[in-house]
Amino acid sequence: MTTSLPGAAPLPAAAPLPAAARHPAGTDSGLLSPVWAGTPVEAATGDEAWLQAMLDAEVALARAQASLGVVPEWALAPIAAAARADRLDLVGLARRSREAANPVVAFVQDFTAVVAADSPEAARYVHYGSTSQDILDSAAMLVARHALTLLAGDLERICDALAALAARHRTTPMAGRTLAQHAVPVTFGLRAAGWLQLALTGLVRIRAQLAGLPAELGGAAGTLAGYHEFATAAGAGRGTDLIGPFAAELGLAEPVLPWHVVRTPVAELGSALATVAGSLGKIAADVQLLARTEVAEAAEPAAAGRGASSAMPQKRNPVLSTLILSAARQVPAYALVLQQSLIAEEERPAGAWHAEWQPLRECLRLTGGAAHTAAELLTGLEVDADRMRANLGMTGAALVAERLAAVLADALGRTAAKQLLSRLSARAAAEQRPLDALLLEEPGLADRLPAGLPLTRLLDPLDYLGESAALVDRALEHHRAVRG
Amino acid sequence: MTTSLPGAAPLPAAAPLPAAARHPAGTDSGLLSPVWAGTPVEAATGDEAWLQAMLDAEVALARAQASLGVVPEWALAPIAAAARADRLDLVGLARRSREAANPVVAFVQDFTAVVAADSPEAARYVHYGSTSQDILDSAAMLVARHALTLLAGDLERICDALAALAARHRTTPMAGRTLAQHAVPVTFGLRAAGWLQLALTGLVRIRAQLAGLPAELGGAAGTLAGYHEFATAAGAGRGTDLIGPFAAELGLAEPVLPWHVVRTPVAELGSALATVAGSLGKIAADVQLLARTEVAEAAEPAAAGRGASSAMPQKRNPVLSTLILSAARQVPAYALVLQQSLIAEEERPAGAWHAEWQPLRECLRLTGGAAHTAAELLTGLEVDADRMRANLGMTGAALVAERLAAVLADALGRTAAKQLLSRLSARAAAEQRPLDALLLEEPGLADRLPAGLPLTRLLDPLDYLGESAALVDRALEHHRAVRG
Amino acid sequence: MTTSLPGAAPLPAAAPLPAAARHPAGTDSGLLSPVWAGTPVEAATGDEAWLQAMLDAEVALARAQASLGVVPEWALAPIAAAARADRLDLVGLARRSREAANPVVAFVQDFTAVVAADSPEAARYVHYGSTSQDILDSAAMLVARHALTLLAGDLERICDALAALAARHRTTPMAGRTLAQHAVPVTFGLRAAGWLQLALTGLVRIRAQLAGLPAELGGAAGTLAGYHEFATAAGAGRGTDLIGPFAAELGLAEPVLPWHVVRTPVAELGSALATVAGSLGKIAADVQLLARTEVAEAAEPAAAGRGASSAMPQKRNPVLSTLILSAARQVPAYALVLQQSLIAEEERPAGAWHAEWQPLRECLRLTGGAAHTAAELLTGLEVDADRMRANLGMTGAALVAERLAAVLADALGRTAAKQLLSRLSARAAAEQRPLDALLLEEPGLADRLPAGLPLTRLLDPLDYLGESAALVDRALEHHRAVRG
Amino acid sequence: MTTSLPGAAPLPAAAPLPAAARHPAGTDSGLLSPVWAGTPVEAATGDEAWLQAMLDAEVALARAQASLGVVPEWALAPIAAAARADRLDLVGLARRSREAANPVVAFVQDFTAVVAADSPEAARYVHYGSTSQDILDSAAMLVARHALTLLAGDLERICDALAALAARHRTTPMAGRTLAQHAVPVTFGLRAAGWLQLALTGLVRIRAQLAGLPAELGGAAGTLAGYHEFATAAGAGRGTDLIGPFAAELGLAEPVLPWHVVRTPVAELGSALATVAGSLGKIAADVQLLARTEVAEAAEPAAAGRGASSAMPQKRNPVLSTLILSAARQVPAYALVLQQSLIAEEERPAGAWHAEWQPLRECLRLTGGAAHTAAELLTGLEVDADRMRANLGMTGAALVAERLAAVLADALGRTAAKQLLSRLSARAAAEQRPLDALLLEEPGLADRLPAGLPLTRLLDPLDYLGESAALVDRALEHHRAVRG
Repeated sequence: MTTSLPGAAPLPAAAPLPAAARHPAGTDSGLLSPVWAGTPVEAATGDEAWLQAMLDAEVALARAQASLGVVPEWALAPIAAAARADRLDLVGLARRSREAANPVVAFVQDFTAVVAADSPEAARYVHYGSTSQDILDSAAMLVARHALTLLAGDLERICDALAALAARHRTTPMAGRTLAQHAVPVTFGLRAAGWLQLALTGLVRIRAQLAGLPAELGGAAGTLAGYHEFATAAGAGRGTDLIGPFAAELGLAEPVLPWHVVRTPVAELGSALATVAGSLGKIAADVQLLARTEVAEAAEPAAAGRGASSAMPQKRNPVLSTLILSAARQVPAYALVLQQSLIAEEERPAGAWHAEWQPLRECLRLTGGAAHTAAELLTGLEVDADRMRANLGMTGAALVAERLAAVLADALGRTAAKQLLSRLSARAAAEQRPLDALLLEEPGLADRLPAGLPLTRLLDPLDYLGESAALVDRALEHHRAVRG
Repeated sequence: MTTSLPGAAPLPAAAPLPAAARHPAGTDSGLLSPVWAGTPVEAATGDEAWLQAMLDAEVALARAQASLGVVPEWALAPIAAAARADRLDLVGLARRSREAANPVVAFVQDFTAVVAADSPEAARYVHYGSTSQDILDSAAMLVARHALTLLAGDLERICDALAALAARHRTTPMAGRTLAQHAVPVTFGLRAAGWLQLALTGLVRIRAQLAGLPAELGGAAGTLAGYHEFATAAGAGRGTDLIGPFAAELGLAEPVLPWHVVRTPVAELGSALATVAGSLGKIAADVQLLARTEVAEAAEPAAAGRGASSAMPQKRNPVLSTLILSAARQVPAYALVLQQSLIAEEERPAGAWHAEWQPLRECLRLTGGAAHTAAELLTGLEVDADRMRANLGMTGAALVAERLAAVLADALGRTAAKQLLSRLSARAAAEQRPLDALLLEEPGLADRLPAGLPLTRLLDPLDYLGESAALVDRALEHHRAVRG
Repeated sequence: MTTSLPGAAPLPAAAPLPAAARHPAGTDSGLLSPVWAGTPVEAATGDEAWLQAMLDAEVALARAQASLGVVPEWALAPIAAAARADRLDLVGLARRSREAANPVVAFVQDFTAVVAADSPEAARYVHYGSTSQDILDSAAMLVARHALTLLAGDLERICDALAALAARHRTTPMAGRTLAQHAVPVTFGLRAAGWLQLALTGLVRIRAQLAGLPAELGGAAGTLAGYHEFATAAGAGRGTDLIGPFAAELGLAEPVLPWHVVRTPVAELGSALATVAGSLGKIAADVQLLARTEVAEAAEPAAAGRGASSAMPQKRNPVLSTLILSAARQVPAYALVLQQSLIAEEERPAGAWHAEWQPLRECLRLTGGAAHTAAELLTGLEVDADRMRANLGMTGAALVAERLAAVLADALGRTAAKQLLSRLSARAAAEQRPLDALLLEEPGLADRLPAGLPLTRLLDPLDYLGESAALVDRALEHHRAVRG
Repeated sequence: MTTSLPGAAPLPAAAPLPAAARHPAGTDSGLLSPVWAGTPVEAATGDEAWLQAMLDAEVALARAQASLGVVPEWALAPIAAAARADRLDLVGLARRSREAANPVVAFVQDFTAVVAADSPEAARYVHYGSTSQDILDSAAMLVARHALTLLAGDLERICDALAALAARHRTTPMAGRTLAQHAVPVTFGLRAAGWLQLALTGLVRIRAQLAGLPAELGGAAGTLAGYHEFATAAGAGRGTDLIGPFAAELGLAEPVLPWHVVRTPVAELGSALATVAGSLGKIAADVQLLARTEVAEAAEPAAAGRGASSAMPQKRNPVLSTLILSAARQVPAYALVLQQSLIAEEERPAGAWHAEWQPLRECLRLTGGAAHTAAELLTGLEVDADRMRANLGMTGAALVAERLAAVLADALGRTAAKQLLSRLSARAAAEQRPLDALLLEEPGLADRLPAGLPLTRLLDPLDYLGESAALVDRALEHHRAVRG
């Protein structure tokens, strides 16, 4: 909220800027996506990163072909030297991409021209026997690898922070809430262990994705015909011989088949990211509920200026969790577009492939931004164990009603127990008194309870934490197993 | 497809560029979204356009407050003069937006500073009594208005082109296809009339949206308290008095209530755009099916270089329809995020609002780009009536089987008719001959048919176009009514 | 929650049932969809209702054809008499629907047989010149009309209940919450007015849908050829003459064109339902937040057994709002399928149409069930104004910080005001005392304030409700306009 | 399509039915979902199956508790004997589920009553220490296990059928199509190998899901407190001791933690099903394109009555692929709801959990129905290799233009090659003659070509199949590895 002060002081950020910095040529600069603006994943997934990844794919192709003898070794240096994004006109490429419905045709023209400027002979070996989809799909996997590497790092930080929280609060009692109501006691450590379990699942999933991102190599219709033609003409093996070396050059996995229209790598990547984003969203939603004014059991890490309102000095908005949720609400929708693109007709679809690029990027950077933000949130989360204890006390005997009902039924018989609880509950409501007090006053009740379970203990929420601590231990053991 | 020629000629596009042009500061420049890259909606919805719209909202607020006497008239000129996007640091704002989970807090700081540099006294009246959401929601509606205006113009071009196609091909026969099979004859005009009906529905819907886009004015929690305080302190009316003038300044509709958490304007805008995008997608899918190599009944407008493959001079890819479909497949998913943000808790949600901005922009520019592309596609669509006729002939009597069955049942009785058709169909399959020929050879059949409906006419697909032409006329009348 | 009591008493519901009642033939009976199970929309949208609507469409077609003279009058009585869902084998039809990928082929066979059993001559006129899609689409619109009529009724009840709540609590103060934190004061009436605005928007939208639901009549490929053939053979006008009478018989709107592949009616129906469902979801989410244990400002209407846990007599789960949210979370996804089916190829698509039926039904009944549930929730919502006041007091001066900052800046100059507030806020935090008290103790401060705005008033949240009441009045006026 | 014959013969299916069969008590019977109506997954996922799974979960719980000594052995027999779905009133349960927003509360009441009717003493041990979510989540996993087992079986059949197709047509040439245009030659075996790769990926994914479906055991708020209380009271171990035996009784995996709000098992199940459904959708879309009237390279397996139109004896609609696509278009949307339910607040959410049940079932049965249908489609797919060859010939030299351009550039130099091709292409278009012929007539060209690559061979599409066969072999090897 920015309700203005009359005359709020000018901030230094508004100092005059050089004209170039003020007028970015790009259409988007993250203004509408604060969850990733300025975080590492922004640069890893921007247009320039895609362009560089396309260049890297071309260089890897030339190298792989050279390793087999299809392309001469001397052509590699000029090709590699030219493969710098800053030697191409990104905005011009973007606009010319309309002519082919994809950016690769114009890209190959321009990159070839840059190579040719240095070495006309080498230009002949640019994109040699290749096709748009081999380059763009391979580039997408390179971009994904970079973004997933960042993501895995943030997930590791998140897991470690959560393991520490779970261990520290292993026995910190808190009201367990179901359907937005106090239910039975839990520990905050158990809550954190659940978050940890989500984060570990996400980490395992992302690691598996990282290991499986495939290179794309198929040629015009997935037969490798162009590559095969040049290879056999050069007496340098067959088309399929190229798949392994190309993948190795890129550091990507070797696929069984070209996946031009076998789109499981992209669809499953989207699904994995949706799982991670949703998991982080659960944590963020919980933090917001803990941080509500009336609950106040946790707070986001304080930082100068963050979550502040210029008008309301007291207000500390849960902005990190808000950013995370803004991402978690979007990613499944973008992942859905990727799943639907599995229906990719024939040897290359006329629309389904083209609909993947932007949603894939959004999945990567929204989830990446959310994880980066969550790492900050969870390493600094402020937990107020006293307030947890105080809130737990609000509902008195109600929080142990489950236990009470069970023990009294054993002690009094179920009919008598039920009648007693109904009678006292009604009185408690009528007299606005806690049920605990009425139970303690109930004559003869104490004598009927099992030895070793006096009424005061029976009514104590802290004595009814169940297996919270043992479950925390299970989660921590899982954490150790995953984190090595 | 870009399968490379060895030594494809370098293109002039790769001429060396000034460093500034090569390194856009923005993260995205449309490289992955050719459907809108370089079209008018790109500039209308880019970050700079949003920033300018936020500035415009601040100026409108000051003006509206001045019209009531809340803000002094002399403060307007410095505020208006400062309200130029190029006086702010867009990228810096984007990055600082993380601190508040929205860009407005940093924006107000910077804009205030720019005003203060010119007139410290006027700076006091910037964002006077206002709140982030009033500015960002109003700015979103300004951006939407601009984008929808472009969209409506393109839809008008599309409608007119389709009306012309429908009229021209009112009686051009074509095989009607259901479930991917030839069914009964239609006319291409009727197909185009269906497309027209979709485009007209979209146009009507977009016009209604344009008329209803509301200004947002509510203050911190929708009570107008800040505005009201300053208004009453100045003896200049009440907070609610400001709503109408503010909306009028912006050229937006006056809402009944602040819509901070009454998000129907955004959700319904998304739905309307999904309707338009899907409608254009239907047209594009049909064009692709008509343009298939084996069908070849229509082709996208030819343009130098478009749809070409560098290696395959013969290939003319349906790139315009591919671009349209790439958008049509995405928009519903983004619209879904907007619908889900209807669940906006309390006076301002912590995530749902923040999840709207980027999907709303994507809906606007994908649909806008698709319409711009469709206008180009449909004003130049090449229709091959001869090929339609030829394809229609492929299936012979099959296309009129519906009529044949009905007439023969009347003539021979239904059992005899059925037996005859079964017997001849089996023979036709066995002998690989057309059913038509066998029917014409069938002794005595001609005599049993109704007068005026000889077998040759009965077998003629062109005599079984039903009400195609009359239906075209209904659609054209609708077009005239909508287009005035 | 159903944590069991040892020996919970058997309930009468489990009394032995007749075998027939125990073994429903249907696959689903609402077990997984409590939001609509047993509500009126269940019966209105069940398979039997669809089957009856298909029969109604056949009867309407025969009647319309008879009105033109295409079908003899005497055939109507046997056709109408046979058109009862209980004369057909629903489950058998469902299973045979796999053979044609839609249920109409088997349905027409069976219905014709039922008619023929009574009148072999009339059977000839069943489904006369018709096609699957005309029957199923028209039936879908009949089902939709019934479901929307129920929905409109529930929305009217909701609107009236909300108008009453808004009026009653027009000035009931409550803490306004933004980003899950106390922000500035509002009134509960204003909150309810926002809900009302959502419900009114939904009602207007549903009424418009009801008025526009179109009959479907196009024949095999949308040319009306079959109908036209029979009409002209009978000298009874043309195919297009049938559209109006058919629509009139069904009580549906007359479309410009057959909409076999002009799917805006279905897509927009889904969008309208998503708008309504999301709007109800917002209300439900707010109720849950108000009903949280720590907040307790509102409660769902009490009803014997509802929301209860067998083990926890004290617990009153917000089950009505939970049911509503369960629907609101699903509907947008189903509506998305409908939007995507706009891409309906050629004269009838092979999949897109078939993917519409179940999602359309789910949209209708989830939204219908949600509205029925919301009507119950909102007519009985318990509001605790005292608790609202008490919670409002929790944050003391913080809730009026916006006003305080503005007034002090005027009074002291902005730098001095800022320093004062910073200093006192820090002390308040350090000493755990309310800011209010420190301000009241601040020497000399009272003298600097404007006349008529003493510090006690300035610190009173009830004096800073802004235009809450006036905005409630605007919403109530809108309510009167819509409800007539 | 069902355009009616006048007087189509009545079918036996319409014979009068006993009243009970005509009036199913259930709301849905598959009428709108022919993709699964009557297939094995229908019964596996119907309400009765869910009810039985809930009963099975209760029995497994009692058994696991008995194995530890918490529940007496003698109580097991009466509990197990009562656990038959036909002893409960399904429809009544469904309706009463509204009171608790889930069906388990009423279910436990009724099931307890049924047990009590046989053995009042045993009734005490029903749902002993348990909670709704433990039963419903575990039941969902049992239902999923059954449905996934069916699905895995169908996927195995599909994989085997596709492996056979790929092997048989390893070298059957076909026009490769990209962006709906002939591109370069492929083999149908390679197309089938791509389908196989999708099906194998799905099979591997479903097997992994099957192995990981977890039992749910957590008690009211995930602390196992109720179970723990009874276990310790009986001196029979701890709450966590129960997890393993309970999972073992159910044949499900043992989770690290209760997953009441760690919803990855459900979200990832949905994702896996969306992957499978989309993969089958790709195959179905390809079949439809191959089966188009103008292409006719494949046909769905013929079966009496299937795909028929009553009016059009010649028509064979691709109904199996249509059914598959109807599912593939829906599943991602339902999976999205599951992904969004990852945001499950606190110890049990008030809506997110409740929104999972129906979408999860739809994912299971739509995908299951689609796989069952695809197995039928692919085991009987009719492939017309002659027609493939004939269509391949339509485009003549165009299909080998990629190769031609490369070879001519080598032979003539790239400028001369380009000029030659442009000149001849223009002539071909102008004279409506094939490019092949013009090339063959071109004087002197033959002499310039490499030895061993005469022009006739260069122009032969069958000589430009690239690595199609080798890629088929890779896929078949993968198939052998997966299928063992």
